[in-house]
Amino acid sequence: MPVNLQPPAVRDLLPVKGVLLGTAEANIKKPNRKDLLVIQIDPMSTVAGVFTQNRFCAAPVIVAREHLAAGKGIRALVINTGNANAGTGEPGLAAARATCAEAAAMLDCEEAQVLPFSTGVIMEPLPLARLVAGLPACMANLRADNWHDAAQAIMTTDIVAKAVSRQISIEGATVTVTGIAKGSGMIHPNMATMLGYIATDAAVSHHLLQQMVTQAADASFNCITVDGDTSTNDALMLIATGKSSAPAITETTSEGYAQLQAVVTEVATLLAQAIVRDGEGATKFITVQVEGGSSVAECKQIAYAVARSPLVKTAFFASDPNLGRILAAIGYAGVADLDVQRIRMYLDDVLVAEHGGRAASYREEDGQRVMQQSDITIRVMLERGAASAKVWTCDFSYDYVKINASYRS
Amino acid sequence: MPVNLQPPAVRDLLPVKGVLLGTAEANIKKPNRKDLLVIQIDPMSTVAGVFTQNRFCAAPVIVAREHLAAGKGIRALVINTGNANAGTGEPGLAAARATCAEAAAMLDCEEAQVLPFSTGVIMEPLPLARLVAGLPACMANLRADNWHDAAQAIMTTDIVAKAVSRQISIEGATVTVTGIAKGSGMIHPNMATMLGYIATDAAVSHHLLQQMVTQAADASFNCITVDGDTSTNDALMLIATGKSSAPAITETTSEGYAQLQAVVTEVATLLAQAIVRDGEGATKFITVQVEGGSSVAECKQIAYAVARSPLVKTAFFASDPNLGRILAAIGYAGVADLDVQRIRMYLDDVLVAEHGGRAASYREEDGQRVMQQSDITIRVMLERGAASAKVWTCDFSYDYVKINASYRS
Repeated sequence: MPVNLQPPAVRDLLPVKGVLLGTAEANIKKPNRKDLLVIQIDPMSTVAGVFTQNRFCAAPVIVAREHLAAGKGIRALVINTGNANAGTGEPGLAAARATCAEAAAMLDCEEAQVLPFSTGVIMEPLPLARLVAGLPACMANLRADNWHDAAQAIMTTDIVAKAVSRQISIEGATVTVTGIAKGSGMIHPNMATMLGYIATDAAVSHHLLQQMVTQAADASFNCITVDGDTSTNDALMLIATGKSSAPAITETTSEGYAQLQAVVTEVATLLAQAIVRDGEGATKFITVQVEGGSSVAECKQIAYAVARSPLVKTAFFASDPNLGRILAAIGYAGVADLDVQRIRMYLDDVLVAEHGGRAASYREEDGQRVMQQSDITIRVMLERGAASAKVWTCDFSYDYVKINASYRS
Repeated sequence: MPVNLQPPAVRDLLPVKGVLLGTAEANIKKPNRKDLLVIQIDPMSTVAGVFTQNRFCAAPVIVAREHLAAGKGIRALVINTGNANAGTGEPGLAAARATCAEAAAMLDCEEAQVLPFSTGVIMEPLPLARLVAGLPACMANLRADNWHDAAQAIMTTDIVAKAVSRQISIEGATVTVTGIAKGSGMIHPNMATMLGYIATDAAVSHHLLQQMVTQAADASFNCITVDGDTSTNDALMLIATGKSSAPAITETTSEGYAQLQAVVTEVATLLAQAIVRDGEGATKFITVQVEGGSSVAECKQIAYAVARSPLVKTAFFASDPNLGRILAAIGYAGVADLDVQRIRMYLDDVLVAEHGGRAASYREEDGQRVMQQSDITIRVMLERGAASAKVWTCDFSYDYVKINASYRS
């Protein structure tokens, strides 16, 4: 079960002026589930995004990048679950383009104004006919208050839907930010099998919007890992419709810029953490915080070595303060000149290790107490600089293996 | 159960002239099991080794390196299981030194002529008194035909003991090579929680012996991964007693050098593969072979990305040819200019992927047939050069989680 994560309440998800959402049961992989989503956005909106770094990026990722680069203004996003259209070669590209063309015809816009997204099993042909047959139903139920349905329609092995809304006031005008995301396995930085869509009714120039989504991703989705695998399909999109009455944000010095950046990052962070809390088989949510490094890069390197270690993750699953495994992971992280004598390690408020070994004050029952919690912070102090980094992960359980050994069937 | 791995037969393990082995039940962690081993070697032997790259290297690793560097000639190795004496700070170093001093006193040699090794749980104080109390029993049963007992005495979560012997003829003289190893979890290159001891009665100069063990490790123990964790304690030691009648090997051009290098590498490779076959919870032995790369480094990088992917490993556990996961791992391995269109991937003899997607000739039942096997080769052809690399790994099962969630208790 997800770790301290409640499904979103319909009433908490605020419509974003200029955004309509419609879902359908298209039978992409299985019947009787919402598996297709269309997000329609008003003309003059700006859209920016960040995508997977995987060299085997999926066909929809290639097409979405092309269409964004075409600069014709995006009018719709089409997202299917059940099939990733990845590792599908030329036919896969053709299917992604055909998806956009069909949606564009229904919405009376150009093919290059539609962005396609897919998630699900890889290396299987996209069932294009079924997807296209589902589009009219999506179009028929386009509604502004449909975020909850939308969050459900993009789930794969997710147990709970992920969605969050925030409102801020910029120069007296209310600005809304609502986001949805999916993902629970294969989660690693650079956004593995993770899809996220955040929309705001603020007006933001395209250049700034790109900067905003990149920064938000770096502070959120690029700080999580479930199993270290990076997917072929990840994308985080940020949509700004400009339908609020707040003044347009065109410079980093614009009124409201910092505020909007902060709230977009907050929404992205909550969605990213929700993905970890719903990590496949997760029973614990673990924050790995590395401080006192000589660079952010080395702090991240160490944090990821700890967060990715199957031995660390199984020890957390067992609630066993087998904390030497954390020290071992710090040691093999690849920071060549690390002086392990200077490192201090805390489990929440409990000092576990210093001077290259177990702290004299450490008592097993204190470690045991923290390990029983469902939210735990591992704090590593390197004492060699002022940089820090934080990574979120979950433990590794029987259910992880079960889910991933049976995902296709 | 181990994958296609039989325990060694006592009669197959050949004594090495100049080497005696003695074991004892020292109650390091649990009663009623052999957990202490002394390997006594004749004067004038040469000894060389390679050790873990982990920055948190264990106390015995630090002391063993010191004693090798002292150059006084090694007379004994003391190996305990049940406790790794790692993450134990100054008291751990003192315990490792005391172990050597006690053994040296019994063998009438210097402390710096003894090498200590430990494996087991980390961050727990080494029970030095029990270890020392066990040494006389080891000394009392020192025998040349004790390799089988020795292999058993160094096991931790290993299910079967790992030992192998080979004989070659150099200029008409018989030369024996016998090796033992332990390790089954936390296995990754740079020899994670892996201990290996190979002895030969050939005479080899120290400089050449170091080169020989480094090359052997690179081709064997540094090509395996079970869970990607690198331990604090790993060591592979090579002992040459010079008691055979073959001429001494002092140059790479010496008669028998290439032959001995080959057989030492063969023994090391069989031991390393045995570790993977006995990988924690393993049900399949997987060879990942990457060919046609522009450098060995990039081939290894890709091979390890595939071999370490929890998603790939759980798919193999399920015998599910969910082969897109392999493509995804190739894609995120970090080779920036990889042209995925050119890659071909085989599962044994079955062409699975080409032109960026599933091969036209691929049939699910062919993939399914190979996945049912217990030994499987993934072959990735990059078509961008002549370099290649091979990595051995195993699948990821329920039992991996079970073993590692309960290892300490």
